[in-house]
Amino acid sequence: MSTIRHALNIKREDDFAQWYQEVISAAGMAEESGVRGCMVIKPWGWGIWERMQHLLDARIKAAGVENAYFPLFIPLGNFVREAAHVEGFAKEMAVVTHHRLISDGKGGLVPDPEAKLEEPLIVRPTSETIIGDAMSRWVQSWRDLPLLLNQWANVVRWEMRTRMFLRTSEFLWQEGHTAHDSREDAMRETMRALEMYRAFAEEDVALPVIAGEKPENERFPGAVGTWSIEAMMQDGKALQAGTSHYLGTSFAEAANIRFQDREGGQQLAHTTSWGVSTRMVGALIMTHGDDDGLRVPPALAPQQVVILPMLRENEGDAALLEYAQALRAGIAAQSALGEGVRVLLDSKPGKAAAKRWDWVRKGAPVIIEIGPRDMESGKVSVLRRDDLWNADGKPAFAVLGRDEAIAAIPGLLAEIQRHLFTQAEQRRDANIVRGIGSIAELDAFFAEDKRYPGWAEVQWSRPSGAALDQVVEQLKARKLTFRNVPLDAAPADGPCLFTGEQAVERIYVARAY
Amino acid sequence: MSTIRHALNIKREDDFAQWYQEVISAAGMAEESGVRGCMVIKPWGWGIWERMQHLLDARIKAAGVENAYFPLFIPLGNFVREAAHVEGFAKEMAVVTHHRLISDGKGGLVPDPEAKLEEPLIVRPTSETIIGDAMSRWVQSWRDLPLLLNQWANVVRWEMRTRMFLRTSEFLWQEGHTAHDSREDAMRETMRALEMYRAFAEEDVALPVIAGEKPENERFPGAVGTWSIEAMMQDGKALQAGTSHYLGTSFAEAANIRFQDREGGQQLAHTTSWGVSTRMVGALIMTHGDDDGLRVPPALAPQQVVILPMLRENEGDAALLEYAQALRAGIAAQSALGEGVRVLLDSKPGKAAAKRWDWVRKGAPVIIEIGPRDMESGKVSVLRRDDLWNADGKPAFAVLGRDEAIAAIPGLLAEIQRHLFTQAEQRRDANIVRGIGSIAELDAFFAEDKRYPGWAEVQWSRPSGAALDQVVEQLKARKLTFRNVPLDAAPADGPCLFTGEQAVERIYVARAY
Repeated sequence: MSTIRHALNIKREDDFAQWYQEVISAAGMAEESGVRGCMVIKPWGWGIWERMQHLLDARIKAAGVENAYFPLFIPLGNFVREAAHVEGFAKEMAVVTHHRLISDGKGGLVPDPEAKLEEPLIVRPTSETIIGDAMSRWVQSWRDLPLLLNQWANVVRWEMRTRMFLRTSEFLWQEGHTAHDSREDAMRETMRALEMYRAFAEEDVALPVIAGEKPENERFPGAVGTWSIEAMMQDGKALQAGTSHYLGTSFAEAANIRFQDREGGQQLAHTTSWGVSTRMVGALIMTHGDDDGLRVPPALAPQQVVILPMLRENEGDAALLEYAQALRAGIAAQSALGEGVRVLLDSKPGKAAAKRWDWVRKGAPVIIEIGPRDMESGKVSVLRRDDLWNADGKPAFAVLGRDEAIAAIPGLLAEIQRHLFTQAEQRRDANIVRGIGSIAELDAFFAEDKRYPGWAEVQWSRPSGAALDQVVEQLKARKLTFRNVPLDAAPADGPCLFTGEQAVERIYVARAY
Repeated sequence: MSTIRHALNIKREDDFAQWYQEVISAAGMAEESGVRGCMVIKPWGWGIWERMQHLLDARIKAAGVENAYFPLFIPLGNFVREAAHVEGFAKEMAVVTHHRLISDGKGGLVPDPEAKLEEPLIVRPTSETIIGDAMSRWVQSWRDLPLLLNQWANVVRWEMRTRMFLRTSEFLWQEGHTAHDSREDAMRETMRALEMYRAFAEEDVALPVIAGEKPENERFPGAVGTWSIEAMMQDGKALQAGTSHYLGTSFAEAANIRFQDREGGQQLAHTTSWGVSTRMVGALIMTHGDDDGLRVPPALAPQQVVILPMLRENEGDAALLEYAQALRAGIAAQSALGEGVRVLLDSKPGKAAAKRWDWVRKGAPVIIEIGPRDMESGKVSVLRRDDLWNADGKPAFAVLGRDEAIAAIPGLLAEIQRHLFTQAEQRRDANIVRGIGSIAELDAFFAEDKRYPGWAEVQWSRPSGAALDQVVEQLKARKLTFRNVPLDAAPADGPCLFTGEQAVERIYVARAY
């Protein structure tokens, strides 16, 4: 094993944060843009996000939700109501104050003082208020409900400390916003969105998640309840990968979303909202990446199979290319995971070995190399990215007949998708501790001399208000957070870890992104 | 004919501008947002734009272009170089000057003076400079070329007078940016993008267009050449529906995009850019809309077939719904225009007639109504949106057997797609005048007492610089513009309409959006 020469310079166990940056760079996912807090998403990273959009959008549409588009700018006034309830309100947002640039007469440019906006505009940090305004126009009667909307958009929240995909000032997401005629219907939608996210994460991203309710202190401000899916990264930290909120009638009241019910009375709508962002790409990297770079689940890979003919810039190349093209066509005609196989014949100039390791770092699920000798014997050499090394430290190529390889691809891609999931699931489950009976045990678990302690599932009495704040502070001092109360947990059967009272449910405690 | 009661309140011939607004509203395409210059794109309008994105994106990818994503914000400094060449530079752009809002202590909010940006950020009006910066990092050697990038994004250009889809402060588009190792290769890409746009417009949007070169005065600033596709609206005005620019090496010089050539020398890359925006939706409306609302080409229709069971809220509804569901399943299993048929069974509450006219105004290509009597006789009633009225002023329903209707759908959708195109093409061709020999004749053509005079194809000597400016002023005084020099025009064979010299080519003159 010690003979393996990995494709990255940094190992996960040596410096996880540095390793993360290295994967992003080596896999061609993204890079700093020179604009504070904003990244450039490079073609391979964007291709993965496009695949996420494609698969999640299909799930959203299948639920009868319609996409629409709302303005990038929100009038400052929309935030005044929100601010009224918050002492010392200060929000990090991009504020547009002018609509023209002019020369300063010294070779530079300045905002034109003549073109100052009467009311500043805010670059949307979320579209809650502006979509609420539209809903108030679109909802008149019970016949207009449920109103199920979704938007794919860029949003901006000024961030002082940024990290690619995980926390950037501009990020991309989808935000679902729905209005209903009853609490029951809105709660059904909240849980439907949560379950949609769980299925998307587990089936498409191969990301095992815990779906559950966030504690009161982590609710979306103004929400009646917030649910999340939580994933464990390879450093043991938790990452919230999607949220779904039941907002009660308070947002409808603020935006004046009222409807005439079947009896002719006026009622406030019950609303929900739910979102998943480009953070999911960060979760993918920190879950499936290894010391050779990224491993992209086949369902999300922009290219699932990459064919590398070992061209030598001589007269033998033509026949090799023809052989590779026939392979490409044969694979492209196959279906895997419900869609046509995405296969690339990479015949760009460059050394074969360098190109192989580039694709390994990018994490293409299957790499097929073809050399002149393969061609002569009708064979191809197949490398699985999820299972890269032989025990002898050499890449684990399997030599198959060409037709055999073509026929094997659909099963292989499905197998890789499954394998990435079960690998992540086993790692997660092995790093969850249950049955912690005291704060001292909790401290021991997180203080142990292992760098990635994982999560603790503890029992608690679900304190509220000041009592909860106290517990949260206790955790904060330990750099710990509550994640969520899993939907499928066993019932509580002991005392609360924090209050000593009878516990009512179980909740996860972890370090988190 | 006079007995037809159209579904809109305003006819095209009475007030084209008002009619346009009415279609947008009646078809549920978009509405004002309350934010200056920004519109809300409603689900039906967004669905059409999504279809445009889907079909154009497939064409972009088929050419080997890769999508990526660049920041929303561009540092002010990026514009300084551009401004240096322009006297009295002033650009209408959204300027971000602060990154925090705080309470003003009087119940309002203000930008926090403590959070003023050192350098203002501009909301991207186009991404030329920031993508150029990235290209300068990504291009090292001839092996990195061509570099073919595209971005789907929102951009902002502050507009004083806005019009939905045609001119809004925020709009959506794709911008292609490519870098090449030679003039020839860059020109090939410029013309490939132009031809891609022509095919997209004609085959997908059913929009007949003229592809040609813009005159010097209409070039993208700094471009060596600009080409466009131009479409004729139903009021005879021209609308530029897409552009493709060959930028020479000047943008590469500004952004420092250099590469090592095969001989080891350093060279500047040749770049191109090309774009199509949500303006295309405006072109669709003004080309295919009629006095009953919008008519969406089947290739772009979010729903191609809408089934309306005439429900009566009684015990008969269950059987009718079952009959309609079988019809829906049968149609959904069909393919048309290369994709599965998109069919909606609309069983929402509401009167059948009101729902029919809603779908007529939205322009769903085929509406199928089913009443209890249809069901009893195994029939359905089919209405083509592109051919709505019988001579007697009644909707032109065709009564077909259910299986017959299912089998007919693919052919019918293809036929409607073709029909919308040929109808628009015939109207355009009938409204182009050729052989105009003098300015007086030009005046006569555009002054004629028909409200929608169309376009004039004239011969000209392709004047440049000040000579061209003079001609452009001459046209401007008549509210006329040059459109483009069509690629496929007959050679010039007479004098220039403007200079009297020997003409070298033909060019279109028209009023324009």
